[in-house]
Amino acid sequence: MLRIDGTATSIGQDLTNDELIYSVEGALRMGADAVATFGVIGVPREAQLSQKIGTVTEECERLGIPQMTEMIPRDILKHQFTDTAKREWPSDPEVIKYSARVAAELGADIVKGYYTGDPETFREVIEYCPVPYVVLGGPASNDPKVFLRFVREAMDCGARGVSVGRNVWTYKNPTAITRAICRIVHDDASAEEALKAFLS
Amino acid sequence: MLRIDGTATSIGQDLTNDELIYSVEGALRMGADAVATFGVIGVPREAQLSQKIGTVTEECERLGIPQMTEMIPRDILKHQFTDTAKREWPSDPEVIKYSARVAAELGADIVKGYYTGDPETFREVIEYCPVPYVVLGGPASNDPKVFLRFVREAMDCGARGVSVGRNVWTYKNPTAITRAICRIVHDDASAEEALKAFLS
Amino acid sequence: MLRIDGTATSIGQDLTNDELIYSVEGALRMGADAVATFGVIGVPREAQLSQKIGTVTEECERLGIPQMTEMIPRDILKHQFTDTAKREWPSDPEVIKYSARVAAELGADIVKGYYTGDPETFREVIEYCPVPYVVLGGPASNDPKVFLRFVREAMDCGARGVSVGRNVWTYKNPTAITRAICRIVHDDASAEEALKAFLS
Amino acid sequence: MLRIDGTATSIGQDLTNDELIYSVEGALRMGADAVATFGVIGVPREAQLSQKIGTVTEECERLGIPQMTEMIPRDILKHQFTDTAKREWPSDPEVIKYSARVAAELGADIVKGYYTGDPETFREVIEYCPVPYVVLGGPASNDPKVFLRFVREAMDCGARGVSVGRNVWTYKNPTAITRAICRIVHDDASAEEALKAFLS
Amino acid sequence: MLRIDGTATSIGQDLTNDELIYSVEGALRMGADAVATFGVIGVPREAQLSQKIGTVTEECERLGIPQMTEMIPRDILKHQFTDTAKREWPSDPEVIKYSARVAAELGADIVKGYYTGDPETFREVIEYCPVPYVVLGGPASNDPKVFLRFVREAMDCGARGVSVGRNVWTYKNPTAITRAICRIVHDDASAEEALKAFLS
Repeated sequence: MLRIDGTATSIGQDLTNDELIYSVEGALRMGADAVATFGVIGVPREAQLSQKIGTVTEECERLGIPQMTEMIPRDILKHQFTDTAKREWPSDPEVIKYSARVAAELGADIVKGYYTGDPETFREVIEYCPVPYVVLGGPASNDPKVFLRFVREAMDCGARGVSVGRNVWTYKNPTAITRAICRIVHDDASAEEALKAFLS
Repeated sequence: MLRIDGTATSIGQDLTNDELIYSVEGALRMGADAVATFGVIGVPREAQLSQKIGTVTEECERLGIPQMTEMIPRDILKHQFTDTAKREWPSDPEVIKYSARVAAELGADIVKGYYTGDPETFREVIEYCPVPYVVLGGPASNDPKVFLRFVREAMDCGARGVSVGRNVWTYKNPTAITRAICRIVHDDASAEEALKAFLS
Repeated sequence: MLRIDGTATSIGQDLTNDELIYSVEGALRMGADAVATFGVIGVPREAQLSQKIGTVTEECERLGIPQMTEMIPRDILKHQFTDTAKREWPSDPEVIKYSARVAAELGADIVKGYYTGDPETFREVIEYCPVPYVVLGGPASNDPKVFLRFVREAMDCGARGVSVGRNVWTYKNPTAITRAICRIVHDDASAEEALKAFLS
Repeated sequence: MLRIDGTATSIGQDLTNDELIYSVEGALRMGADAVATFGVIGVPREAQLSQKIGTVTEECERLGIPQMTEMIPRDILKHQFTDTAKREWPSDPEVIKYSARVAAELGADIVKGYYTGDPETFREVIEYCPVPYVVLGGPASNDPKVFLRFVREAMDCGARGVSVGRNVWTYKNPTAITRAICRIVHDDASAEEALKAFLS
Repeated sequence: MLRIDGTATSIGQDLTNDELIYSVEGALRMGADAVATFGVIGVPREAQLSQKIGTVTEECERLGIPQMTEMIPRDILKHQFTDTAKREWPSDPEVIKYSARVAAELGADIVKGYYTGDPETFREVIEYCPVPYVVLGGPASNDPKVFLRFVREAMDCGARGVSVGRNVWTYKNPTAITRAICRIVHDDASAEEALKAFLS
């Protein structure tokens, strides 16, 4: 899966100024099986980001390749781009639900989004979203137990998987934590079993 | 009918920043019989929205598919995107007439627009508009009697149909209210007959 | 003749934000014999409007169809879009001359422009303009005698015709006033003869 | 030679907002042997103007037609667009040298630029510029003796020619002054001989 | 290698407004073996510059030609465009590392970047950057001994070469300093040997 936008950096001045750097056709030529895009709801560039996603959707339809769209609400934006941070959830879970819905309506085949912080509201997000939803990992949690429990909880609510970066690569042993996550996502293991896999 | 613009959300910062997310050709490829677009008269983005509609018109002509354009005046914009609200009408019915005319001149095959609030001025809107006019439902009315009377009144003035969203899907029984609306629009039933259809 | 720009409305916020809504090719496909465009000299959007006209010129050359360009100076802009108004002329007739010249240099085959208010200066406009010049009618004059005298005067100075809208359609009998104008433009009648044609 | 940009007018609000109104291909179709473009160094639109010139360069390479680029520094901009003015020179001759160099690096085949005001610094401009340099005439000088001396001086420094507009057409006898200029540029005559040609 | 952007000048108002002036295809047509582009991290135009680089990457992939991207952090921008200056290093070497990484992720085949000022942090930059890194020369150092030592140090840290302009052409004998640099880069000579080559 190739992320085809990405003009914003954490040193830059606008985390939402994230435009295409590659085309869907180019991704296909490089052998990608899917493309990933990024949007934010409730910010001044919202419309531009959404138009970008719509354009990618149309190219994906034309070329027969799926798109995963990460769509996050404004109030999570800052927290999301912190390297390590205490896990925080949006004050209003409705915005997660809304963001997922917008991504799906713009044509995303898979939505990558936040967890709401509790199973009850997150189940609603999943139900409300017409396409598969994968939970993003967000800032690095330094506690594998906490992180694996969070993965288990998200999967129990109906998430179709997780999309984890910093919570893998900031570990001294990225393979171990990856194995542990796979135990939950692919083998339906409990958080405790996964933690054992991590520690073994 | 596929809505091919839609980059604005009610969480976003500019309800009028509504650009294309799909092309007419893409809509055709997806099997759409018509496309829908959106414009606003009297706002800073007016010209951009109108240019979008003109561009779609040209593509529709080229590809042989009709366009329905929802065109609303500025003073209704906020009210329009409230989920539920007391039905309000523009202070000056002339702006409804004007909006419809502009949409038609930009090449819309069907205009989707407001009701003016009273039959006398609305008849003028219909007469002034050179293409078929369908009335938009607007914010959810919780009273089916009031809503069905409004549909009847609009049809009596020459509206060619209604375009209703929230006034259907916010009902516990969307099928019942749809059936009631169809009774008026397709079978020329009275508001009272339609209400019976809703209650049965 | 198809007007292919027109994104500005009198309810809108910038009368000069007038971009293309159709292409020259599209106009040709619709059977148009010529296209019409609009520009304003001395306003912030001047360059954009002129670039639009130049682009249309190139397409017109390529496709073999003429362009009529309405080019007006800034100080007439407001007066021009009033529905009815006492006929007003620019404080400096040079701007009319200059506007016509710019339109012609941008490639207009016919310039549609203002009358200067007096024959002496208007003759200079005509002489200075390398392509045929037609006089625009402007806001509705309610006095046919005044209007027909104005048409006669413009023609005597060398105008190749008139481009009249509101001064026809605001009449109860648009056919009569059209007939009267044609008497002057096509049959070289005097203003008095034309007025008789109007009254008969 | 066809000037293919030109959206700025002296009535307008930004003399540097000078974008393309025709394409290189269109110029070729019209039978042009070369195209002319315009840029300004040191102004907010500098980058846009330079990008325009680069784009034209690429088209010119592709189609085999040369480009002459007029490139002037900011501090001369106002003086340049005055109809008649006492001849003024930039406070720092380096900006003339720099402008010429930028035009050449953007791909101009011929640079059209200012005279620096004295032979010593102007020789450096010519030496520094890797392509032929023609001197622009600027605001009308009413004194043919002064103007012809200036042409002679520029040619002596290595200018390949002059590009004169207002200093020809504001003369009662444009042919005479043209003949005089040609005497210098093509026949290598002295300023005095050229003046005789003008007076004869 | 052809630099295909370059709309910013040191007289201009924004050193970061550096857009394409030529296409990759045009560069290939001119016989270029590679193209060079320029970006800055941490400035308002960051996203535009990055999108430009991404676009060039895709064209380079399509046409089979490599791209070298010069990517510098904001705090070095001013220093970089001074003609001669005491060699300065960024306050935080992390930004050099980060800039190189972004350039590589945008698809640069070679990164052209700053030296950090000391071998320890520079080794980290090289290790962190997934593609070859060449060190830019920056403002002219008037001391060949200092400059050659700097080249040696950078090479020792793993730089694949240097990209030097002002530190060659501001010398009275550019050939001599070029020969000296080549001694280090190609023949792995010590700074002292290179200095001898320069003096001989």
